[in-house]
Amino acid sequence: MDNIKSYVQEHKDRFISELIELLKIPSVSADSAYSQDVIDTSEAVRASLEKAGCDRVEICDTPGYPIVYGEKIIDRNLPTVLVYGHYDVQPPDPMDLWTSPPFEPVIKKTELHPDGAIFARGACDDKGQMYMHVKALEYMVRSNSLPCNVKFMIEGEEEVGSKSLGWFVEKNHEKLQCDVILISDTGMISNQQPSITTGLRGLSYVEVEVTGPNRDLHSGLYGGAVANPINVLAKMIASLHDENNHITIPGFYDKVEELTMEERAEMAKAPFDLDQYKKALDLDDIYGEKGYVTNERNSIRPTLDVNGIWGGYTGEGAKTVIASKAFAKISMRLVPHQDWEEITELFTRHFESIAPSGVTVKVKPHHGGQGYVTPIDSIGYQAAAKAYEESFGIRPVPVRSGGSIPIVALFEKELKSKTIMMGFGLDSDAIHSPNEHFGIFNYLKGIETIPLFYKYFVELSK
Amino acid sequence: MDNIKSYVQEHKDRFISELIELLKIPSVSADSAYSQDVIDTSEAVRASLEKAGCDRVEICDTPGYPIVYGEKIIDRNLPTVLVYGHYDVQPPDPMDLWTSPPFEPVIKKTELHPDGAIFARGACDDKGQMYMHVKALEYMVRSNSLPCNVKFMIEGEEEVGSKSLGWFVEKNHEKLQCDVILISDTGMISNQQPSITTGLRGLSYVEVEVTGPNRDLHSGLYGGAVANPINVLAKMIASLHDENNHITIPGFYDKVEELTMEERAEMAKAPFDLDQYKKALDLDDIYGEKGYVTNERNSIRPTLDVNGIWGGYTGEGAKTVIASKAFAKISMRLVPHQDWEEITELFTRHFESIAPSGVTVKVKPHHGGQGYVTPIDSIGYQAAAKAYEESFGIRPVPVRSGGSIPIVALFEKELKSKTIMMGFGLDSDAIHSPNEHFGIFNYLKGIETIPLFYKYFVELSK
Repeated sequence: MDNIKSYVQEHKDRFISELIELLKIPSVSADSAYSQDVIDTSEAVRASLEKAGCDRVEICDTPGYPIVYGEKIIDRNLPTVLVYGHYDVQPPDPMDLWTSPPFEPVIKKTELHPDGAIFARGACDDKGQMYMHVKALEYMVRSNSLPCNVKFMIEGEEEVGSKSLGWFVEKNHEKLQCDVILISDTGMISNQQPSITTGLRGLSYVEVEVTGPNRDLHSGLYGGAVANPINVLAKMIASLHDENNHITIPGFYDKVEELTMEERAEMAKAPFDLDQYKKALDLDDIYGEKGYVTNERNSIRPTLDVNGIWGGYTGEGAKTVIASKAFAKISMRLVPHQDWEEITELFTRHFESIAPSGVTVKVKPHHGGQGYVTPIDSIGYQAAAKAYEESFGIRPVPVRSGGSIPIVALFEKELKSKTIMMGFGLDSDAIHSPNEHFGIFNYLKGIETIPLFYKYFVELSK
Repeated sequence: MDNIKSYVQEHKDRFISELIELLKIPSVSADSAYSQDVIDTSEAVRASLEKAGCDRVEICDTPGYPIVYGEKIIDRNLPTVLVYGHYDVQPPDPMDLWTSPPFEPVIKKTELHPDGAIFARGACDDKGQMYMHVKALEYMVRSNSLPCNVKFMIEGEEEVGSKSLGWFVEKNHEKLQCDVILISDTGMISNQQPSITTGLRGLSYVEVEVTGPNRDLHSGLYGGAVANPINVLAKMIASLHDENNHITIPGFYDKVEELTMEERAEMAKAPFDLDQYKKALDLDDIYGEKGYVTNERNSIRPTLDVNGIWGGYTGEGAKTVIASKAFAKISMRLVPHQDWEEITELFTRHFESIAPSGVTVKVKPHHGGQGYVTPIDSIGYQAAAKAYEESFGIRPVPVRSGGSIPIVALFEKELKSKTIMMGFGLDSDAIHSPNEHFGIFNYLKGIETIPLFYKYFVELSK
């Protein structure tokens, strides 16, 4: 497949400028202020699939944002690859930490990306990685080298829990029938050491509200005499971890899969430099659950993090007020076998139970999803491994990721297909953070690697 | 002094409309966006003092907002009353809880204010209460009944710590020389039971910042592996109180004055209905330091309250982020003998010492002030008590307030004068909260009572 290399070289400027156009549309699904932009992005994705050679491209309405579907069926007897991706992005804030506006993409060189990287919200997660598949298809169609059938399903609610996608998948088993699901929405260890994600954590995301007095009060007149919702919320959050950073919610660990010492020894072989890790984040020390190392804490262990907190006076200067209400957004990353709905229920029951008298507590579940582990002896994994090996010149290693793609477990349940996670981003690409970027090298290497996956998947399926 | 009653009756509509004009100017000293409005308010106060008959009215520049000074010296051998008040107001937010705009005053009737109350930011704290003194002076000048000398000192930074006033007072001992200081910036028990504030709590107000990683991180990739600044801040705040709601800062209680059982028994005689208190705030229970009742917790005991907290994603929907930074505004109410600067230092040292590795902590002192207790056997207190008794028909009771007027202790130190706190607001007037208001009855009663204070103060001074 030398042709793909030369095709990428010939068309790379266009590939980059097309992605940049897509990144300019602020498709923030979490904020309804951007809803027209999210819709506009689905339209842009539809047009790009048609241009790349997909047939039967359609915008499928859902209870939420639309799903873009397209397919190229060349022979019903050949295997079918279902490509999943998402066109929505995380909110860009805090805006003041971006060095260039999040929806005005620019190319800048970095230490890890000497060929340059595209800086924009969604550059890596997931517009850039999704668009690699569109461009890989373009190549295979134009060069008449598509070796099997392909279906695309690109959604607009991944960053807010993929609710409509679940609804859509349940209703469209036949349409989505496939032999393997292919996703590029994860990362790899480095440009020198490719890796394939074999596990994802599940997620339970909730919002809590603590209400004390029915109005904001003067802290001099009422301070010390009524429960302060912010102090109470802090106390409740603090109590969710013990002194060893274990989570204290009763039943939380009941279904957690404990890895054997052998499995943990195997994991420890992945290259990892703790000093480098700390330096990259400007940390004097790491922190986490006692008894586990960093690469276990962020992959095989469940966690509980406050993602946002607010209450009272947060403006300039001082205001001596006791707030009526305090709020927090809290997410738990879960490992395989922990059921996200059960964990949400355990959290809710526990959080309500620890509220002191003098306040009332509300827990509002936002969304969630199950964890997932994929076997490395499947045809899909083997095909992906061969594809990376050919394009990078080095065998990829399997890794468990700490992130969540809640829909993957649902795919297995509903479509009876395994998912292969071919990620090309780096952890340092700042997804979900200010200054998100995606290396030009990674983007083009992805486009180059994907057709190889198709080739080997068909070969190994014979 | 029947004349004051009829004067108030005759001019009350004008008194109300003049105050309403003053309330329309949003003199929020905490927010620099309002700085021109604060300046404009000082000008309006200056004009009102001149119109009321003050001589030598001037706007005194300071390093911050100006101080309006005026005086009426009728005879150097007679006593001098120094009136202190402030023309700045608290920030109005949260705006969405106001039933009418904070700077568009309206008169509405309430259960406690059947004659109506003026709803606006600053109506009670302190524009309304300060303006009572201007109108009382107007009456005494026009009726030629001013029995002594009077000086006015109205500042614009009370809500942010009165820094410039401290600077001004230190520089102007002679100009401000007086026999008593008179302030209306506190409340009274009810319209049926007037009271005089004999104690104020001190204040130490700080802002804390917890920094973890150098950028916001994806909570899936890093969750569980690095210290989350919000979780850490919650834990640190939670640890500031023990299970009995005692404050855990080493040395915090060392200088706290413990009242005798007799003094506490005396305090317990003040009318207080706990059920009514809880009902007014929609609380199922009160909360506070073990071993003390509500009226002790909010007056003779020091407290620590978080006045604001923020960090991470606080917008609509969900964002799976680990914030780089988390913040809180924390204030401590102090009792007499606790030195606010020493407490600020103790807090800072303790808060920095409890920061776990993996985060850095900054503590920024905002401002503070000493607590204050005034004796009830002074001429000033006796004159105030007689004035209330005559105008309300019932003897006022002395009470210790939980609030702080940081400058009162400074007045005693610099000017060697006692301060008398003749408040006419009610605790339920929602100062510092949305829908702040001041009863028309209270406003007019204040104007009526103040000249009686002058009369009795001169009589008792003879």
